[in-house]
Amino acid sequence: MQKLIITILVAFALSMVAGPFIIPWLKRLKVGQTINQFGPRSHQGKQGTATMGGLVFIFAAAVTSLIMGVWKGTEGYFLIIEILSMLAFAFIGFVDDYVKVVKRRSVGLTPVQKMVPQALIALVLSVLAYLNPYIGSKLVVPFTSYTIDLGFFYIPVMIFVIVGVVNSANLLDGLDGLCAGNSMLGFGAFALIAMSLAAHESGMNPDLYNTALFSGAMCGAILGFLRFNTHPAVTFMGDVGSFAIGGALVAVAIVTRLTLLLPIIAFTMMISSLSDIIQVIYCRFSGGKRIFRMAPIHHHFELSGIPETKIVTMYDVLTALLCFVALLGYVK
Amino acid sequence: MQKLIITILVAFALSMVAGPFIIPWLKRLKVGQTINQFGPRSHQGKQGTATMGGLVFIFAAAVTSLIMGVWKGTEGYFLIIEILSMLAFAFIGFVDDYVKVVKRRSVGLTPVQKMVPQALIALVLSVLAYLNPYIGSKLVVPFTSYTIDLGFFYIPVMIFVIVGVVNSANLLDGLDGLCAGNSMLGFGAFALIAMSLAAHESGMNPDLYNTALFSGAMCGAILGFLRFNTHPAVTFMGDVGSFAIGGALVAVAIVTRLTLLLPIIAFTMMISSLSDIIQVIYCRFSGGKRIFRMAPIHHHFELSGIPETKIVTMYDVLTALLCFVALLGYVK
Repeated sequence: MQKLIITILVAFALSMVAGPFIIPWLKRLKVGQTINQFGPRSHQGKQGTATMGGLVFIFAAAVTSLIMGVWKGTEGYFLIIEILSMLAFAFIGFVDDYVKVVKRRSVGLTPVQKMVPQALIALVLSVLAYLNPYIGSKLVVPFTSYTIDLGFFYIPVMIFVIVGVVNSANLLDGLDGLCAGNSMLGFGAFALIAMSLAAHESGMNPDLYNTALFSGAMCGAILGFLRFNTHPAVTFMGDVGSFAIGGALVAVAIVTRLTLLLPIIAFTMMISSLSDIIQVIYCRFSGGKRIFRMAPIHHHFELSGIPETKIVTMYDVLTALLCFVALLGYVK
Repeated sequence: MQKLIITILVAFALSMVAGPFIIPWLKRLKVGQTINQFGPRSHQGKQGTATMGGLVFIFAAAVTSLIMGVWKGTEGYFLIIEILSMLAFAFIGFVDDYVKVVKRRSVGLTPVQKMVPQALIALVLSVLAYLNPYIGSKLVVPFTSYTIDLGFFYIPVMIFVIVGVVNSANLLDGLDGLCAGNSMLGFGAFALIAMSLAAHESGMNPDLYNTALFSGAMCGAILGFLRFNTHPAVTFMGDVGSFAIGGALVAVAIVTRLTLLLPIIAFTMMISSLSDIIQVIYCRFSGGKRIFRMAPIHHHFELSGIPETKIVTMYDVLTALLCFVALLGYVK
């Protein structure tokens, strides 16, 4: 537990130190976000804020995990999977951000250009999990010791889940500090849960212990990043950041076999996706009408007159609460 | 630990339920804050926001502690002390707020009218602690097992500490969500520390266990209150709220004998007081010059052009970090 706290502090410190180096460099490269012209009008003022700031916490979390992880024998296997999952999805986001900057347009890669590599990474992750003797094809039902064995269907289901989580994290990243704050809390909860699971197994399970440290590193690194991302943001995390968060979060969920806990811990990500899907479907079947003023739903709240900072805090408070609920099942 | 989480959730729920009853009632009573004319000019827009909102979390924390506490035999003794300390200081704040509202002025009670009853309550608390076989006259040096025995000086020193903490909490309450967010984190840290101390003693120490539950109740209740207090605030906590927070926090510190941990956990409160004191002293000796643009120091940051929401997040991040540092010494 002490090592977990030290991991959080190290990751935080690295983020704080890396930020003042990386962010001015992003600004010099003119990596300013081209604000989506279809977003809320008030967001037009955000044009020019440096994007790709997610590189700050990606760097901090990866380095901290490498330093603090337990690497004896094969014990670092899960940790490598988690770091690589984060980096792989971050890379797709990086390309997307880069295209936006170079081509100066707000859309970036086409949906297909994003989806295909995402699905490929998801396939690799799912197969690795399926073949792993600890993970296998079973999902734990939260708050119980029951498991659901998906058999071979584990792979297609997990591909859907992984791609879903990564894009949901991306959708949640629409207001200053929103995705960062919510996911920081989620990683904090997963750190405690993995630590608790690691100790509950016969002896200390080093894979789960490493997973706890990785979650702690993400939590601390994002906490440090919030220093730069809080309203009014000095930098946005960009797709590189939100994809990295999605990739890291879903990897932690897979390794702990707690994918079914994501609707609780990552509830705000889920409603971002769902509101987007509902909006599109409703619009199609109603002949162009809208159910929300704008999707994802945080923009609906914004256009309903709730201040940006208030929406972010509401989301943070809700996430903190749901994390407490999730913890209920996993701490003595 | 599960009971602690449930306590946090219950307190949160009570705050959320009580808020929509108490706040409109405060508004009907026209309990709007009369903004200090010497504060930053931008704060003049806050005139009319309902104050005394602290009643929401005072109610929620007190009721939750009564429900969730362990009351077998004399085991509830510390818990009663903690609740009464909160309520007693809250009462002074209530009178202060009430005078402001009735007399429509921003100053309230005179310093002497506040200090004398504060010192009296502090005297009672100090003597009770001094006479208690568990607490006594010793302070634990943080991160060690050393204790400092103050002997009879414990009483005057603690009076100074108690009055200092209560007024520091009051000074910190200058920006939307600042005092609430920082103290919520502090109570969260003390909940975990007290829980850890309770389990470390031979068997489970019910007094410290109750202290953990009380801290959890404060943490959850204030988290719920943040729903109404976040920028732009629907309600301010008022002196009733900040005095209650100070009274509760210092009671928890005394009972756990961890008064010396307060400069870490309540660092932002301390710098609020110190900056105020430095400002006054410097002003007197320099013949009217100012070292800060305005004291407490969060107003200095504000007048330096840092947005209010950003200062609040910076303070929150710093406090979270210091709480992690404090936890390092008290979790395995």
